[in-house]
Amino acid sequence: MQYPEPLAKLVEELNKLPGIGPKTAQRLAFHILGGTLEDAEKLAEAILEAKRNIKNCSICGNFTDNDPCRICRNVHRDQSIICVVENARDVAAIERSREFRGLYHVLGGVISPVDGIGPDDLTIDKLLKRVQKGSVKEIVVATNPTVEGEATALYLSRILKPLGVNVTRIAHGIPVGGDLEYADEVTLARAFEGRREI
Amino acid sequence: MQYPEPLAKLVEELNKLPGIGPKTAQRLAFHILGGTLEDAEKLAEAILEAKRNIKNCSICGNFTDNDPCRICRNVHRDQSIICVVENARDVAAIERSREFRGLYHVLGGVISPVDGIGPDDLTIDKLLKRVQKGSVKEIVVATNPTVEGEATALYLSRILKPLGVNVTRIAHGIPVGGDLEYADEVTLARAFEGRREI
Repeated sequence: MQYPEPLAKLVEELNKLPGIGPKTAQRLAFHILGGTLEDAEKLAEAILEAKRNIKNCSICGNFTDNDPCRICRNVHRDQSIICVVENARDVAAIERSREFRGLYHVLGGVISPVDGIGPDDLTIDKLLKRVQKGSVKEIVVATNPTVEGEATALYLSRILKPLGVNVTRIAHGIPVGGDLEYADEVTLARAFEGRREI
Repeated sequence: MQYPEPLAKLVEELNKLPGIGPKTAQRLAFHILGGTLEDAEKLAEAILEAKRNIKNCSICGNFTDNDPCRICRNVHRDQSIICVVENARDVAAIERSREFRGLYHVLGGVISPVDGIGPDDLTIDKLLKRVQKGSVKEIVVATNPTVEGEATALYLSRILKPLGVNVTRIAHGIPVGGDLEYADEVTLARAFEGRREI
């Protein structure tokens, strides 16, 4: 069926979102059309407001509405340890664990020669400058355990260690609540490598 | 983590969409923030444009940007047969099959006493008026094969038959490409009930 033009356009735009296929885009579009004008306006407004008011923190690169972000501004956080992540979503995930009380650095991706992404395309320069200021003692690299994430972790360790900071990597292993039987071999291998005395 | 207010608001609004849980809402919000302002504006604009310009057709109730909708206006379509569906999404699905060349009638739901939805909450009155005009010979009831959908089909058949129209129901059975082994009992029972000579 040929949708009326404004509906087709809406489906097309929704379909561009990650993980939203044509069917889901249709369902969402019909839901929006079936709802009130107020609801649609609230959604559209939220998109625009967020995009207009949320910037990247000039220090760590995290999403924020005030620059520097509230983590960088928080004097109660441990200024001597920086956790390096791929993107702002990872900051949110780590914050939810309430385990880490230091600062962050958002790389904006990982080194990936296949995709043409080199160290200069990431915020590695900025990270070096933060470390060179001298108060940082440890860098925890929390990039994802993918080939690119590992390569980036290694690269960072190589350029950061000469500056006299400890470079650590978060542990990889069996997820808590996970079942050994269903763990892939790489994760299992990592779990053995990272074993600790109890 | 406490998201900055505009981001939290965006996640909240996206989370209201059907099938979009908190995690997906977060992923979408971060995607929107990571994209260009232009993309965000296009999405917001598409939502508003669709909601402002798409109305329900005054005849059949389908979504349209021109009233009556292009199906109701199309003189090449069979004016003697009306397919009754629960909502506008169903019209789109049936149109995609290119099997049906008549007109539609969108009920706006199904009779569901548990949810407090009676015949008066649907567009059944409008359907009766369309039938009373006299040119309609058949009503195909294509409500979903749920308890409520079946009850609605029965109700429609009871009030429409006295008006001298044929009331039919679409067939239910094993989906094409489906596997007998995985079909539920009700579907299998329907497949047997609806068997035809070959």
